[in-house]
Amino acid sequence: MTLNEAAAFLRQGDRYLILTHRRPDGDTVGSAAALCRLLRACGKQAHLYPNEDLTPKFAFLYEGLLAPEGYEAALLVAADIATEDLLPQSAQWCRGKIDLCIDHHGSNGLFARQTLVDPGRSAVGELIWELGELLGVPPSIPFCDGVYTAIATDTGCFRYPNTTARAHEVAGRCMESGADFGRINKVFFETKSPARFRVEQYLFEHLAFSADGAVAAALFPRQAIDTLGATSDDLDNLAALPRQIEGVECSIILTYTKDGGYKASVRTGERVNASDLCGQFGGGGHARAAGCTLQGDGPACLRRLVAAAQGALGYV
Amino acid sequence: MTLNEAAAFLRQGDRYLILTHRRPDGDTVGSAAALCRLLRACGKQAHLYPNEDLTPKFAFLYEGLLAPEGYEAALLVAADIATEDLLPQSAQWCRGKIDLCIDHHGSNGLFARQTLVDPGRSAVGELIWELGELLGVPPSIPFCDGVYTAIATDTGCFRYPNTTARAHEVAGRCMESGADFGRINKVFFETKSPARFRVEQYLFEHLAFSADGAVAAALFPRQAIDTLGATSDDLDNLAALPRQIEGVECSIILTYTKDGGYKASVRTGERVNASDLCGQFGGGGHARAAGCTLQGDGPACLRRLVAAAQGALGYV
Repeated sequence: MTLNEAAAFLRQGDRYLILTHRRPDGDTVGSAAALCRLLRACGKQAHLYPNEDLTPKFAFLYEGLLAPEGYEAALLVAADIATEDLLPQSAQWCRGKIDLCIDHHGSNGLFARQTLVDPGRSAVGELIWELGELLGVPPSIPFCDGVYTAIATDTGCFRYPNTTARAHEVAGRCMESGADFGRINKVFFETKSPARFRVEQYLFEHLAFSADGAVAAALFPRQAIDTLGATSDDLDNLAALPRQIEGVECSIILTYTKDGGYKASVRTGERVNASDLCGQFGGGGHARAAGCTLQGDGPACLRRLVAAAQGALGYV
Repeated sequence: MTLNEAAAFLRQGDRYLILTHRRPDGDTVGSAAALCRLLRACGKQAHLYPNEDLTPKFAFLYEGLLAPEGYEAALLVAADIATEDLLPQSAQWCRGKIDLCIDHHGSNGLFARQTLVDPGRSAVGELIWELGELLGVPPSIPFCDGVYTAIATDTGCFRYPNTTARAHEVAGRCMESGADFGRINKVFFETKSPARFRVEQYLFEHLAFSADGAVAAALFPRQAIDTLGATSDDLDNLAALPRQIEGVECSIILTYTKDGGYKASVRTGERVNASDLCGQFGGGGHARAAGCTLQGDGPACLRRLVAAAQGALGYV
C-alpha cells in the first residue's frame, strides 16, 4: 500500500482502534498516539488499545486516548508491529483481524489486510507525519510530540546509522510546530532509574577484559539481578556500553533469565561477526549485534563465549 | 554584520587564515574546516591555523587544510571564538588583528573588525552552511562533514535544549549531500577512552548519596587522578552523569587540580540553583550548571559542598 492509499483508507473509515506492540517503545506509542490525534482532527472516532505493558513514562503521549471499556471499534490499525506475535498478550484476539498495519520493519509479516511498510524510514513516526501532510491536517502540538518521540527514540536521538535526512527534517518541523523536544529528550535520553544505575555500577565493577582489551565481558548471575532489583528494562542494551570503550571489538553480557538459563547479548566492531559468534551457540542476529541462550553454570557459559570471541579475533 | 555582508566580505578577499579556539571542540574545528573548504571552492587561498591543541580525533576534518610554514595570510577569520583569551597560546600574536569573527555566543566580545554573531544558532556550523548557500557553492562531502560535526557536537547529538529546528534541517541536508554521519556519531558519541572508562568506573564506585537520594557527590583526590591516568578531557562534564539518575537534584564532582586546590562542578535540577550554590564558595555559572574552586582538605571541601546542597533542598 502506498502512502496515498493509506491516507485514502484513513479518510474513508471511522471508529478506529490503534494497537501498539508488547513491551512498547517510543516509536510504537508515539506513532500510534500521533495517528490517533490525526484521525480525531479529521473528525473520526479513534482510540488507542489499552496495552497492559504501557509504562508511566509514556503517559504524556497516551493521556486521554485510551479506549474506554466497551468501545466498539470498526477498524483495527497496528503501529510499528512487525508480526502478530508482538501484539500484547491481552490483544491476541486481534490476530487475523488487523485492517491496516503501518510499519518500517523489512521483516514485516504482512499479517494485516493492508500494510504500509517502508524499511527506508527510521521510524513509523516519519510515516505518520507524511500521512498528516497528505490528509492536510495542520500539525498540533500533541501530534508533534508523538512524531518527535517516535523518531528520536528509534534513532537513539539521531545517533544510530538508521537515521535519515528526512528524520531530521521531520524532527525539525515538529519542533517548529511546538513539540516539547527538551522534555522528551530529558525523559528518554537523560534519565536513568536507580536500578539501572546499580546495574551499570555492577557492570563497571565486574567487566573483565581479555585479548589485549579487545574482548570485554560480564556476567549477571541470579543473585546479582535479585540484589540489584533489575527488571529486563534495566538490563536492556547493556552490551552497547563496553563496546564504546576504545579497543573493545567484542562486548559480551550474560544475564540470568527467569527460566534458569542465561541470555547472552553480543556487540561487535568490524573484526568480529556477532551473528556468526552467537551462531556457534544456536543463536543469531545481525553482524554487529546478536544474541544466544545458554544452559548450565554461568561462569562456565561466559568462559565459552569469551573463548569463542578470542578465537574469532585470532587469539587461541 | 549580516549573513549577506559576511558572504560579500568572503567573496571579496583572498589568502585567508582561519583560527580555532584553544582546547578545540567539534564546532570550532568543524565550522573552520567547512569554511576553509568553502573558500577554496570559491577559488580562494585558505588554510587553518595549526592550533597546537588539535587532537587526532579531528584529523579527518583538518587533513590537508593546515597552513604550511611561511604561509602569508591577508585576512584572519575566527570561528566559534567568543573572546581573544580563547585564541590558542601560539596565536596570541593575532590579538587585535582578527578581520572577521563568526560566532554564536551571546557573550562574544566583539574583538574583531567585523563580527557575524547569532546566539539563536545551535552551532557556528549552521552559519557556515548559510554562507555556503549565499555564495552559491554546492555542498561537497568534506564541507558537509565539517558542518554536520559542528552541529552534532554542539547540540550533544541533537539532545540539548539549544538544538534548533534549523539545526535538524541543515544536518539532514548534510546527510543528503554525503556527510559520513555514522562515522562522525561513532567517533564523538559512542567512543570512550580507556582512561575515561576508568574515571566513570571510579565515579560509580565512589558516588555517595544523601538527602534521600537528592544529592549525589564524589571526590577525585590527587592519588585517584594519578592512578586513573585521567586528563582534563577524561574528567570533562562528569557531573552530568549522576544528574541523570532519577531523584538526583544536585550532582557534585570535586576534582583535584594541578595547583593543589579542588575544582567543583555542580549540576542541578529545578529545585536547586547551581549558580547560587557555587556563589557561596566564590564561584558561579548557570542555574543548572555551575562551578567553584576550593582550597584545603578534599573530603572536608566535599562535606561543605554537600551540606550547602542539602541546605538548599531544605535538609538542615
